[in-house]
Amino acid sequence: MTVKTLALAAALFAAAGAAQAQPPAPAPPPVLTPEQFQLQVDAAALRDQALKGSPAYPFLRDLTTEIGERLAGSEAEHRAARWAVARLTAMGFKNVHIESFPVPGWTRGEEQAELISPTFQHLTVTSLGNAGATPPQGIEAPVALFHTYADMLAQPVGSLSGKIVVVTQPMVRAQNGSGYGALAVMRFMGAAEAAKRGALAYLVRSLSTSDSRLPHTGATDFPPGMAPIPAGALSVPDAEQLDRISFDPSLGREPLRMHLVLTPSFKPGATADTVVADVVGRERPDEVVLIGGHLDSWDLGTGAIDDGAGAAITTAAAKLILDMPHAPRRTVRLALFGAEEIAFAGPAFAAARSTAEQSHYVIAAECDFGAEPVYGVALPGASAKTSYGAMLAETLAPLPAYVDRAPARGGGEDIEPLGPNVPLASLEQDGTHYFDIHHSADDTLDKVDPQRMDKAVAAWVAFAYLAADSDVDFRAKPPGKSATP
Amino acid sequence: MTVKTLALAAALFAAAGAAQAQPPAPAPPPVLTPEQFQLQVDAAALRDQALKGSPAYPFLRDLTTEIGERLAGSEAEHRAARWAVARLTAMGFKNVHIESFPVPGWTRGEEQAELISPTFQHLTVTSLGNAGATPPQGIEAPVALFHTYADMLAQPVGSLSGKIVVVTQPMVRAQNGSGYGALAVMRFMGAAEAAKRGALAYLVRSLSTSDSRLPHTGATDFPPGMAPIPAGALSVPDAEQLDRISFDPSLGREPLRMHLVLTPSFKPGATADTVVADVVGRERPDEVVLIGGHLDSWDLGTGAIDDGAGAAITTAAAKLILDMPHAPRRTVRLALFGAEEIAFAGPAFAAARSTAEQSHYVIAAECDFGAEPVYGVALPGASAKTSYGAMLAETLAPLPAYVDRAPARGGGEDIEPLGPNVPLASLEQDGTHYFDIHHSADDTLDKVDPQRMDKAVAAWVAFAYLAADSDVDFRAKPPGKSATP
Repeated sequence: MTVKTLALAAALFAAAGAAQAQPPAPAPPPVLTPEQFQLQVDAAALRDQALKGSPAYPFLRDLTTEIGERLAGSEAEHRAARWAVARLTAMGFKNVHIESFPVPGWTRGEEQAELISPTFQHLTVTSLGNAGATPPQGIEAPVALFHTYADMLAQPVGSLSGKIVVVTQPMVRAQNGSGYGALAVMRFMGAAEAAKRGALAYLVRSLSTSDSRLPHTGATDFPPGMAPIPAGALSVPDAEQLDRISFDPSLGREPLRMHLVLTPSFKPGATADTVVADVVGRERPDEVVLIGGHLDSWDLGTGAIDDGAGAAITTAAAKLILDMPHAPRRTVRLALFGAEEIAFAGPAFAAARSTAEQSHYVIAAECDFGAEPVYGVALPGASAKTSYGAMLAETLAPLPAYVDRAPARGGGEDIEPLGPNVPLASLEQDGTHYFDIHHSADDTLDKVDPQRMDKAVAAWVAFAYLAADSDVDFRAKPPGKSATP
Repeated sequence: MTVKTLALAAALFAAAGAAQAQPPAPAPPPVLTPEQFQLQVDAAALRDQALKGSPAYPFLRDLTTEIGERLAGSEAEHRAARWAVARLTAMGFKNVHIESFPVPGWTRGEEQAELISPTFQHLTVTSLGNAGATPPQGIEAPVALFHTYADMLAQPVGSLSGKIVVVTQPMVRAQNGSGYGALAVMRFMGAAEAAKRGALAYLVRSLSTSDSRLPHTGATDFPPGMAPIPAGALSVPDAEQLDRISFDPSLGREPLRMHLVLTPSFKPGATADTVVADVVGRERPDEVVLIGGHLDSWDLGTGAIDDGAGAAITTAAAKLILDMPHAPRRTVRLALFGAEEIAFAGPAFAAARSTAEQSHYVIAAECDFGAEPVYGVALPGASAKTSYGAMLAETLAPLPAYVDRAPARGGGEDIEPLGPNVPLASLEQDGTHYFDIHHSADDTLDKVDPQRMDKAVAAWVAFAYLAADSDVDFRAKPPGKSATP
């Protein structure tokens, strides 16, 4: 600190003292009991063990190498579940089992698109999950191009009859993925909205922050009773090419026409498999800290970052706890969900657990945002201000990562159906580059750095162990400024 | 300069003085005549005009938007040539015409590959140009995997009978593209070498520095009389996946088997079109400074960097000279070659020009390395030491770019057939990221930054103008240390 900043600090201090209407000073951090202090020391040791090399990368490498892509409901997804059962059993987990549930059994078909007027251009396109099919020879139709999703929604019902509707709105890069959240409706609901307006087919610019020619798939949804229309994603360069062509003064007078082949199909009676495994608690085994990721992936890549990484990170965190000299007081339950992309495993997982059983779920958190480090943890309600929050903050600080002062706003598609009484946490991973490859053929192992992924494991093991080997109650309201759990 | 570095400099100076066997001090730079000084001032003005915004980007944008991909011999390539004739005519160039020549008419077909043992994996693959075809349903065969090209070459003739040969050697990233040069033989000759050894088909890891799932195509070659076998490039992640699978202890005991569909075809009687245009010299119009790029591209992308950029950069440089108040003394000839990828336009271009005509070609240079700035210019023979070299060095310095002390070692596939009496120069562009997208579907306009491309135009216009508006003779041996051209 220089003389100048010292002077500035003194001036600010004086100004703060002078202001009468300041909010009350923040409560001092909770004082830890000797037992809590020991807990924190143990959590730090687990964190450091993760950083030295956790089982996450070998798990992810073997899953993506020995299995590869694993679309929910496919033969490969079932093979992945059997692979995970064998792997988790060999690692020493208890109660390892599969829970099956029905899924739509959607399967990708042929994919081809060309602009045929005003100039010929090959376009790279991929079907959206749950979308319908064109005839095998495809369709040829005029294009209705909208530069924003709102422009498309502003069209009256029926006005897009006979058109291939294309929306080219770009998504924003953001560390926490909020750029995706803001625009996902364009993909998830856009096909149904276009169909309402008469569209023959619907194409969106990929929800992607990359400039790759590879398109990014993802699920779309049709309300009950509506027949799915063909729907797909264009790569970012192709969407930009259509924008340019629509603006080109030499070409702009002729209408855009496209030929489109998308022939996915549904396989009735398909099921997917969630794999569950436990580190059984030594004192209160029925109290559960639930962590996990989803084992299914899209079929274009090998699902390394989405979500092999989440499965690997949480498996590694649980394994580090499993290998401690004594089990934690509570059970750490690992769930590798069998469907998150094309369908959701969460409702079946929740339905398989009674309200009474769920009332013993201490906390649940899902890891589904790639293989990059965790930079912050959001806890339920006011838990950040408890002893648990203080211990976690201290353990995460060297990574570095923080405990968010704001509460968690959700936990992930597979755990949110557990009901309002299961507290949810959110471990935030750096997603600045996540949407460069998410849902595309580029989601492959080479994109994962083992050391960076182990930083995520370090945060997860600290989070889970501190919850499992203590009596923290994330449902409790903190009684006051110096609250302890 | 600090006291410490001053002292160091003095010590080095003393050491240099003390050494008796030092090479002679370099010759002082040539003294410019008043006319040469004016020439340098004019070249600097052209350079600065290019930096303010040249016609390169509009040319490239419209070529890739209104035409798109343009494989030599295809209908699109002919359309691109007609487009270029109209564009260059409208820009004011003279003697604008097309020179047609025969090409093999190779056309891409279906492309599909799967590893079927020891585990199922979709593989991304693309045919190499000039390669043969599998039957429509593909072939299924055991894989012979080699981690280096030398390992494959070490196999005896006949020993790879019935195998799909895969070579997974990675290429090295290098600013000047030497990593590509070192390994291009693996793609260009590898299919024929594998065929000699009995291979059913040949696949190489893409000559790529990216980790994209998109494979990178390129030409391969078979000696006369040898039937082309199917040959393709795997994406980098897929080649790495095959390496991992071949090493995986859980999978390694079963042999690798692959299903492969590649169905390209040849269209006999195909031709391609080179477009030629002039800025006619005011004093010695038969003396020609030849610059250009190639108008054809691979069919996977829109050929923005390979080589729409080269065509655009040299067109822009010629146009800036065309728009000067008076024409340069010599003619600046622009050639947009009709085939460089799947076949070469150079031999036909050279054959159309007599030895006598070629003896008036002052210098030739081809631009075919993307849209990034020029960082150095290599001149023929000892030309770097002439007045021309000094003027060019001074003009390039602010970009920054240098005149290489070493002579140019070649000039590009399309101009080298012009024969040993045509001096060749090489304007080196930064290729650090060129091979991330080169020859792949990712070669699209969005990868080009207009301002960075104009830095290349600035170097090209300085190079061409200084040669065209002077009497420099690049064939002359400099008479001594203080040589002037």
